[in-house]
Amino acid sequence: MRPSELRQDLISLDWVVIAMGRAKRPHAFASSFPFVHDAKETCPFDNLEKFGNEKPVLQYGGKADWTLKVFPNKYPAFMSGFADCPVMLPKGPYNTMEGRGFHEVFVLRDHYKQPAELPVARLHELVHAYAERFRMLKEEGCVNYISIFHNHGRSAGASLTHPHSQLIAIPVIPPDISRSLEGSDRFFAGERKCAHCTMIEYERKEKSRIIFENSSMVVFAPFVSRSAFEMRIFPKEHSPHFETMSDREERSLAEALKTALHALNKGLKNPAYNYFIHTAPTRDHSHGYYHWHLEIVPKTQVWAGFEIGTGIEISTIGPESAAKFLRSFV
Amino acid sequence: MRPSELRQDLISLDWVVIAMGRAKRPHAFASSFPFVHDAKETCPFDNLEKFGNEKPVLQYGGKADWTLKVFPNKYPAFMSGFADCPVMLPKGPYNTMEGRGFHEVFVLRDHYKQPAELPVARLHELVHAYAERFRMLKEEGCVNYISIFHNHGRSAGASLTHPHSQLIAIPVIPPDISRSLEGSDRFFAGERKCAHCTMIEYERKEKSRIIFENSSMVVFAPFVSRSAFEMRIFPKEHSPHFETMSDREERSLAEALKTALHALNKGLKNPAYNYFIHTAPTRDHSHGYYHWHLEIVPKTQVWAGFEIGTGIEISTIGPESAAKFLRSFV
Repeated sequence: MRPSELRQDLISLDWVVIAMGRAKRPHAFASSFPFVHDAKETCPFDNLEKFGNEKPVLQYGGKADWTLKVFPNKYPAFMSGFADCPVMLPKGPYNTMEGRGFHEVFVLRDHYKQPAELPVARLHELVHAYAERFRMLKEEGCVNYISIFHNHGRSAGASLTHPHSQLIAIPVIPPDISRSLEGSDRFFAGERKCAHCTMIEYERKEKSRIIFENSSMVVFAPFVSRSAFEMRIFPKEHSPHFETMSDREERSLAEALKTALHALNKGLKNPAYNYFIHTAPTRDHSHGYYHWHLEIVPKTQVWAGFEIGTGIEISTIGPESAAKFLRSFV
Repeated sequence: MRPSELRQDLISLDWVVIAMGRAKRPHAFASSFPFVHDAKETCPFDNLEKFGNEKPVLQYGGKADWTLKVFPNKYPAFMSGFADCPVMLPKGPYNTMEGRGFHEVFVLRDHYKQPAELPVARLHELVHAYAERFRMLKEEGCVNYISIFHNHGRSAGASLTHPHSQLIAIPVIPPDISRSLEGSDRFFAGERKCAHCTMIEYERKEKSRIIFENSSMVVFAPFVSRSAFEMRIFPKEHSPHFETMSDREERSLAEALKTALHALNKGLKNPAYNYFIHTAPTRDHSHGYYHWHLEIVPKTQVWAGFEIGTGIEISTIGPESAAKFLRSFV
């Protein structure tokens, strides 16, 4: 039996396990359910007047031929806006805070076409809208972090099948981001280099885990993947801040995203997935060693007791095999 | 609309969100699928000879009337045993290590009776077996952490419905445990108290989140719950080490576990869940401020892009409502 391999992340110092003895072939991870679309007739995003959505905060295209609209979420996880910045409210030994912020929905026009199936121009628009709303909301005084994400498929938590992304702006820095910022700072203190730049350099040298590359972006299955078929898109040029991308970089990102999602869609037969952007906090500008990126995490495995109890994922496919397989669909 | 509440964990300093504006009633979390048992005829645990399992490393009861058997896992996530302790093998900028350790399966006799349905005496035996195997494996020179867990239901990652727990002994301290140990030390340095003892004291004073209590154990839905209907069982007396429990404490734990799982089973109609034990590392005895406990995490919500991208869970039920509901089934 081939032994398992433990691999330690450069930034979080977390361990993952690649369980070679339990290894599966790439096809074994393909989605076994057909993707069933919600009825267009009752989809709130196809019947905006009927469902009484508010006026969009951003719209691309004209009244009739709009291509993208951004709305405040009707059921926000964080109550909208700030009267004053929320303060720490102690409850017994704990700190609490009023959960205020902004929660927006980016609605793509076509009910049936997921990002993997859209032309690069549409994804360029989507990425541009992310950055535009990010820049707008970071000016709100109490926002400390802005998370942008996209859920595809019910098992990835999408409550509607109509393609849509979301943005949540919150007054605290999330734990996973804090750890990445600290880890990036710690790595820089030791190595005098950006940890993410070191990862990118290693992956580009090794080549085995690279899936796609264009002028500004590189897509790879990281050496320390937490999930099977996980992909990350990095800008090759160091930058902590997603929202400062040039138009050329936005276009590169759109092409990289399209290519990665298309490969996933074809290779694993339209699996459920989440993608999200990791970028530096909006207000604290001391994190120059952070390097923004986009992570694509397909729902290929269930986290069971060991993963939930330890934070160590047992992968049954190595990122090398996953990347080789995905590359064949690029 | 009721605002959401952000709550910060005492130990990890992680934030969770209780989204009051999206709040659901407890019944909305009930499992919507009937639990379908695997066929007993083809279950490997009911046909041990046929499937050629190895000799048990532990057995309670006689040859014919055995009640519990512990086997090495046939498909281990970590290759069995150590020739020498694994060493760090650098690969480019990364550290790797051979994934060796021990992976065992605790098989309960009855194909159909999950822990929630077993008499306390059977769970006492199970808990006793956990501690016995833990004490045995911690003597193995290269083991640094031992994780004990139980998966129930396919959506919680159980590949067989026959009730069984698992133990994985590994050469590294998992990230979630490292963070809890560091957090416990940090809290003690500031407050001169065990953080977990502070939590227990607060919950017992507040009462609203307590689900069950007996002579040695207390079960509550923590003020900072990461998942809806999450429960934790804590020994009231401070101890970092699970495996040093007295027989009386083992019996108390079995009763608390039975009560908690029974309430979950009745209240949420046999949902999928994971439970696992968090305890101090086996070799490093500097963590006297850690306090072992057992966590029960039902699969009530899907982690989507925001949760995976930030580590902040958006709960749509508060632990107060969850505890009140679960208490009614005790």
